[in-house]
Amino acid sequence: MTVRFVVLGCGRIGSMHADYLHRRVAGAEVVGVFDVVTETAEAVAAELGVPAARTLDEALSIDADAVAICTSTDTHVDCMVAAAEAGRTIFCEKPISLDIAEVDRGLAAVEAAGVALHIGFNRRFDPSHKAVADAVVHGAIGDIEVLTITSRDPAPPPIAYIEVSGGIFNDMAIHDFDMARYVTGSEVESVYAVGRVRVDPKIGVAGDVDTAVIVLTHENGCLTTIDISRRAAYGYDQRVEAFGSAGMAQSTNHHDVNAVLATDQGYRQSPLQNFFLERYTASYLDQWEAFVDAVENGGPTPISGADGRAPLVIGMAAKRSMDEGRPVLISEIV
Amino acid sequence: MTVRFVVLGCGRIGSMHADYLHRRVAGAEVVGVFDVVTETAEAVAAELGVPAARTLDEALSIDADAVAICTSTDTHVDCMVAAAEAGRTIFCEKPISLDIAEVDRGLAAVEAAGVALHIGFNRRFDPSHKAVADAVVHGAIGDIEVLTITSRDPAPPPIAYIEVSGGIFNDMAIHDFDMARYVTGSEVESVYAVGRVRVDPKIGVAGDVDTAVIVLTHENGCLTTIDISRRAAYGYDQRVEAFGSAGMAQSTNHHDVNAVLATDQGYRQSPLQNFFLERYTASYLDQWEAFVDAVENGGPTPISGADGRAPLVIGMAAKRSMDEGRPVLISEIV
Amino acid sequence: MTVRFVVLGCGRIGSMHADYLHRRVAGAEVVGVFDVVTETAEAVAAELGVPAARTLDEALSIDADAVAICTSTDTHVDCMVAAAEAGRTIFCEKPISLDIAEVDRGLAAVEAAGVALHIGFNRRFDPSHKAVADAVVHGAIGDIEVLTITSRDPAPPPIAYIEVSGGIFNDMAIHDFDMARYVTGSEVESVYAVGRVRVDPKIGVAGDVDTAVIVLTHENGCLTTIDISRRAAYGYDQRVEAFGSAGMAQSTNHHDVNAVLATDQGYRQSPLQNFFLERYTASYLDQWEAFVDAVENGGPTPISGADGRAPLVIGMAAKRSMDEGRPVLISEIV
Amino acid sequence: MTVRFVVLGCGRIGSMHADYLHRRVAGAEVVGVFDVVTETAEAVAAELGVPAARTLDEALSIDADAVAICTSTDTHVDCMVAAAEAGRTIFCEKPISLDIAEVDRGLAAVEAAGVALHIGFNRRFDPSHKAVADAVVHGAIGDIEVLTITSRDPAPPPIAYIEVSGGIFNDMAIHDFDMARYVTGSEVESVYAVGRVRVDPKIGVAGDVDTAVIVLTHENGCLTTIDISRRAAYGYDQRVEAFGSAGMAQSTNHHDVNAVLATDQGYRQSPLQNFFLERYTASYLDQWEAFVDAVENGGPTPISGADGRAPLVIGMAAKRSMDEGRPVLISEIV
Repeated sequence: MTVRFVVLGCGRIGSMHADYLHRRVAGAEVVGVFDVVTETAEAVAAELGVPAARTLDEALSIDADAVAICTSTDTHVDCMVAAAEAGRTIFCEKPISLDIAEVDRGLAAVEAAGVALHIGFNRRFDPSHKAVADAVVHGAIGDIEVLTITSRDPAPPPIAYIEVSGGIFNDMAIHDFDMARYVTGSEVESVYAVGRVRVDPKIGVAGDVDTAVIVLTHENGCLTTIDISRRAAYGYDQRVEAFGSAGMAQSTNHHDVNAVLATDQGYRQSPLQNFFLERYTASYLDQWEAFVDAVENGGPTPISGADGRAPLVIGMAAKRSMDEGRPVLISEIV
Repeated sequence: MTVRFVVLGCGRIGSMHADYLHRRVAGAEVVGVFDVVTETAEAVAAELGVPAARTLDEALSIDADAVAICTSTDTHVDCMVAAAEAGRTIFCEKPISLDIAEVDRGLAAVEAAGVALHIGFNRRFDPSHKAVADAVVHGAIGDIEVLTITSRDPAPPPIAYIEVSGGIFNDMAIHDFDMARYVTGSEVESVYAVGRVRVDPKIGVAGDVDTAVIVLTHENGCLTTIDISRRAAYGYDQRVEAFGSAGMAQSTNHHDVNAVLATDQGYRQSPLQNFFLERYTASYLDQWEAFVDAVENGGPTPISGADGRAPLVIGMAAKRSMDEGRPVLISEIV
Repeated sequence: MTVRFVVLGCGRIGSMHADYLHRRVAGAEVVGVFDVVTETAEAVAAELGVPAARTLDEALSIDADAVAICTSTDTHVDCMVAAAEAGRTIFCEKPISLDIAEVDRGLAAVEAAGVALHIGFNRRFDPSHKAVADAVVHGAIGDIEVLTITSRDPAPPPIAYIEVSGGIFNDMAIHDFDMARYVTGSEVESVYAVGRVRVDPKIGVAGDVDTAVIVLTHENGCLTTIDISRRAAYGYDQRVEAFGSAGMAQSTNHHDVNAVLATDQGYRQSPLQNFFLERYTASYLDQWEAFVDAVENGGPTPISGADGRAPLVIGMAAKRSMDEGRPVLISEIV
Repeated sequence: MTVRFVVLGCGRIGSMHADYLHRRVAGAEVVGVFDVVTETAEAVAAELGVPAARTLDEALSIDADAVAICTSTDTHVDCMVAAAEAGRTIFCEKPISLDIAEVDRGLAAVEAAGVALHIGFNRRFDPSHKAVADAVVHGAIGDIEVLTITSRDPAPPPIAYIEVSGGIFNDMAIHDFDMARYVTGSEVESVYAVGRVRVDPKIGVAGDVDTAVIVLTHENGCLTTIDISRRAAYGYDQRVEAFGSAGMAQSTNHHDVNAVLATDQGYRQSPLQNFFLERYTASYLDQWEAFVDAVENGGPTPISGADGRAPLVIGMAAKRSMDEGRPVLISEIV
């Protein structure tokens, strides 16, 4: 069986997913693409040799098994509802929406339609981070007690993006909140967050911060610290460390070039891989394989709608904590 | 010139200092030792071939340039006051005292006598941590924005020690609070701390926690996270990472054996150096060289009495933060 | 412009090249494939949606710019001669042939036809090894004095392959001989080789060795050591180290999982990437980009026919050295 | 019991041994020192508070258990013979002598006197190299098949030293020949060596080379490669790698500073420890502990006279191989 996909949204991440699905994922093919900008859809369609739909309705009328929702965040839920009603299995990029009511509308439609839904928290499929999570699951570090996540982008996005992104906690740290739930296997109870504008004053003018430290407490007693920054001079820094009663598991960064130069100035190694498209290639491919496998075998998708909702709530708690200068309980938000 | 030392306190750390001063530090010699347990003093005295004093007064009557106060914490200030009145240059192990009023009594006596005082925060002299601090001072990472300290002991001390230690923040994290001031070069403004009993319930019964996460905010805008545990299965884990506008500097752990074994099970490396006596040998020796140099040249000691006082205040704020579940300003404490 | 390829040979390496050219290399497309086993060709053709030729003549009658010769080694030269006469730019997998007279016949045909030829020593394009070569070219290590190559396969090939492979020096070490010429930028003068049967006695029965050490001397004074084995329990071990008057450059191995696990047993990391298809993916893609660029711009191919011939001669010298127990001059062979 | 030592020779290595024995090795003390330059002996004697002998006879008349022979190489055997006749347990620095007949005279005297003898191949006690040897002994890498030794000094010694050192093979590579016997646990059968003058033409004028590559074959089938250089811009490079049927064990270099700096220029680490006094401190101390233990318990010394002789023979074979351009059998030399 080959799982037939229609890809909704053909921007940077959508065109990447379309290419991967059509050319690099066994058991998957793209049978149509859609974008609100018709030229964008047509360019990707031509590259893959598949039809470009001009409207969402037209896209959902293409005979297919699944859709990949890669449109702009504010249109995710509309796509989700329409795809659910059309009976498609749904892959949706994160975040589902920045508005919890909207999220709940989407999830309700999915549940009503009885279709399967997967939220694209791809980092769970990164082989290095997954090794950390597996070490926890398999007891290799005993009971998890402290989780440390370092998450630094190489450079900030355009200010125009920051103005609509929902802020650093829901735009950037949302991946880390998901990682915290994934690695600890435990829900978050409280959030304490402190943020600063250090990278670019314009980010502050736009109402956001660019540097932050967050402490989460979990139901199982684990304490998580997250530090995030929108700029790291040495590349895309992505590390996860789980510490427990029997040891520690730690994912380390990736270099494109695995070579050292030793001179009288010391040892030198190249900077890190630039950004997520390079760093997380394996995670995107492995995520698709897991999704396709779930569709073929009718099993549950690896990351549920509830998994997509929870990090948004944590992000809202983090924002409130920063604004009010106090730890905030998750139960205050929901 | 040779700086003549009388070592006060001949326990584990005192006998180590006596051995280092007498045998491994150029320009230093021990001319007498004292311990409240006479047999303990006599054993060290015999090993070094120097006299053992039976009382503090007798110890301070020995013709010497400096004293090294290595007695139990609750007697530090009495020793400090007596040594100051005797005109000795003073090295005092950390913490000065668990009681701020006592600390202030000691510092006042030192100031009244006009003698020099150094507090033994030896980790500042660790070559690896020092490289991180130097990177900050020299601008190699630009402006410091986030500091991350990981500090995990291999195994908890006896419960009897924990009952009188002053608690994890003033006993163990005090080194990390000092490191935060040292590396950032900036005073702490607020403290948020969360603690858990995960290692041993008896530690909880004794009124302490054994696992904690702390967030500090600094006057210069830097955010510091500290995670501490009283037990790490893989050895003594001591890491400091400074992140800034132009890069990141990170001290890594030390292995006694620098070798790997690669088999079909993967790559293996030995555990970390066991504990501070092994890990921080270089720091103890380099600290003595800096102290002896200050005595010989009449310069300021590297770590002042005020540097000894500040981490105690941070520790008090951390305890209050944990107890009250809110961030605490340093200005609330002092 | 898109460079149109016909892929000759659809085995493991041929089908990989066809997939990469058609789907992952910008500016390239496959317009036909051929294999002596028609079903093999048809399977790849169907996967890519291109025609399968039933004969070499038919394959060369397809309108195309270039051919990729990926057939079995003993048919390379016939393909090369026919492709040259058909005016195609030629990519040929290594080795050109195990028979120098045959190699010369192929190169003569290429020269007579005036077509461009590239030999697929892909490791030159590995980003890590290339960083070592670049360090030499750019003077970062000063004058190169010693080159050290470690080249260990995870497991030996089938005995049936070893019987026709031309022996360890021309089958396996040929890559390392090419690497030695590439990194040092200097021709080889003499070869000393010692071999042993350690992995499997059947390899000895087949007339080959499975473990060897080789010393090369170069015209520029550099000394190269190569150690090769057909079996490494911990994975595919591929390292190159150039030592010179101003320093050292070293390519290190790649792990699929960049994570460590630390317990009371020490630190553990995963084994190496399994074999060349995983380890050298980037090199295959980068090689194609360089080749396509040369075709598009009419520049010289990165690796010439002479570059394909030289390592074979070194391999013959190595075999003679091992058989006769003495260093052998390259000038004795040619 | 305390083992009483007289140290013969108070130069750089002799004064280091005297200091270690007197101050840092449990169960050992120095009871006298001797040097042909009386002032040199007196300086060390004053530092330790022990008598300085004016002659060898006087030194051997001091009541002691053992001698440490640290004089210049050409006087080792005379000291050894005299110490044997005086009934002392003997520690002798390597090499015993550059003249095999002299070596045999010394070993005969030791045997006739029935005293224990240890040759100071300290690198066997380096914890990192020892971990490699232990991995072989304990079967962790299966049967050893290839041994790779990299041995690079930071800078060449004075030409005056090179003129009398016995040449690079007996002066510098002798440690590596010992390492090869130690790690493989097998005698050497043949030697192939190639040398070059790359570091300093004056070394060539003095009749020596400064850069060399050596291949050893062992009785157990193992193949060893050694590369040595008298100059490494990045510090003292000392690595040993044992490859076998079940895996690989590798000792890595030591840095004084375990820290990295990451910027847009990449990752940087400090150069290596400068030279053997820093790099091999642990080996010198551990060697003394093993020696003292052997004296106290009457067991065999860890490194015998035969172990001191064998590397000299390998060095002579290496020299002949380089001069004659062919592999040389050890049986040709002895």
